[in-house]
Amino acid sequence: MTIERSPRHFEEELAQLKGRLLEMGGLAEDRVQSAVRALVERDLTLVEKVLTSDAAINQLHVEIDDRCFKLLALRQPMAVDLRAIVSAVKINTDLERVGDLAINIAEAVARYLEHPPVKELIDIPRMAVIAQDMLRDALDAYVRHDVALAQAVLDRDDELDTLKTLVFRELLTHMLRDQATIEPSLDLILISRHLERIGDHATNIAEDVIFMVSARDVRHHQQDDAGH
Amino acid sequence: MTIERSPRHFEEELAQLKGRLLEMGGLAEDRVQSAVRALVERDLTLVEKVLTSDAAINQLHVEIDDRCFKLLALRQPMAVDLRAIVSAVKINTDLERVGDLAINIAEAVARYLEHPPVKELIDIPRMAVIAQDMLRDALDAYVRHDVALAQAVLDRDDELDTLKTLVFRELLTHMLRDQATIEPSLDLILISRHLERIGDHATNIAEDVIFMVSARDVRHHQQDDAGH
Repeated sequence: MTIERSPRHFEEELAQLKGRLLEMGGLAEDRVQSAVRALVERDLTLVEKVLTSDAAINQLHVEIDDRCFKLLALRQPMAVDLRAIVSAVKINTDLERVGDLAINIAEAVARYLEHPPVKELIDIPRMAVIAQDMLRDALDAYVRHDVALAQAVLDRDDELDTLKTLVFRELLTHMLRDQATIEPSLDLILISRHLERIGDHATNIAEDVIFMVSARDVRHHQQDDAGH
Repeated sequence: MTIERSPRHFEEELAQLKGRLLEMGGLAEDRVQSAVRALVERDLTLVEKVLTSDAAINQLHVEIDDRCFKLLALRQPMAVDLRAIVSAVKINTDLERVGDLAINIAEAVARYLEHPPVKELIDIPRMAVIAQDMLRDALDAYVRHDVALAQAVLDRDDELDTLKTLVFRELLTHMLRDQATIEPSLDLILISRHLERIGDHATNIAEDVIFMVSARDVRHHQQDDAGH
């Protein structure tokens, strides 16, 4: 990658950067989807695939950081452009963590599949869909500088929280009724928490978007809610 | 806060920024320490205090971000200074999350204290001490540009992982033996995971320090290990 010094290329470089972030978001989302599909379909081969295929996302992570630093150093952007590039550094970190969380989910799935199924899985796949939607919307909001869409992402966080609580209560009932379900239930609880954290990363991105566009800091105007 | 345009003040502004980050780190560490002390001493008043006293850290979070953006826009730093300021934005985020994790711990402690103690607590307070040490060392490494100290932080992550596994196995035994311990044991497992995540944030900071000083990316050269 070379970054030319002519100012007229700045917009193009920024567009490329955004394209790479979308690509990274797509990879991260795929990995989450695969990990949860492996759970639902009890597919150990797919688990293995998630566990061993993080090279692409890691490479993109390093490349995006590199692009950001070069843009900051060579272009010395101001105002919204400056915020867009610093946000890209942060979003890049969030997406890399989402990739790591897909691995954590796959590890829990591998353990879960050593036991008979505890229950039919309904809420966890639903959580996965919501978390992926939030992630995709947050990235779209970043690319389009769309504050309304970013705000919509923030508003969905409660859905994940509610489902996480449902999952927890239902599994607790199983654990109390039948001790053979304790160990696999723990892994389902962990998976629901990993999905919740993916939603948190989408929320971080959405907050960055609002800050980037409006230079308004929304991060400490909402109540955290992080219980069971 | 005003940032003067004269270049001779840049070093001073950077030193001030680092001082604020250390202050934020101290606040985050205090909150973690209080949350775990509340657990060990079964002190509900202290739990309540952790749950309601995050205003200072949130305010500092916004102020540090503001300082970073002003420095980037007005000073247009290059090379290691540029990396130091972008790292500060990221470290600021990590420290804010540590503050949030202290709240998560306090919430789990509040639930845990509704039950009789499951066991004597040894490994969890030990995890808390390690996580706090890692955090402090990572911030010291940032301020002093000390790559060796940052590397030492990365090396300690395995200690937390080992303790987390010990905690998990021991609590699983309790849960299998006596179903009255299931619910409080779950909260202890959650607390151990929150502490592990605090260690992860210290690790992130240490990786940023190595990148800042040497422009070398160590993030994808080590194996992630994130099981039970």
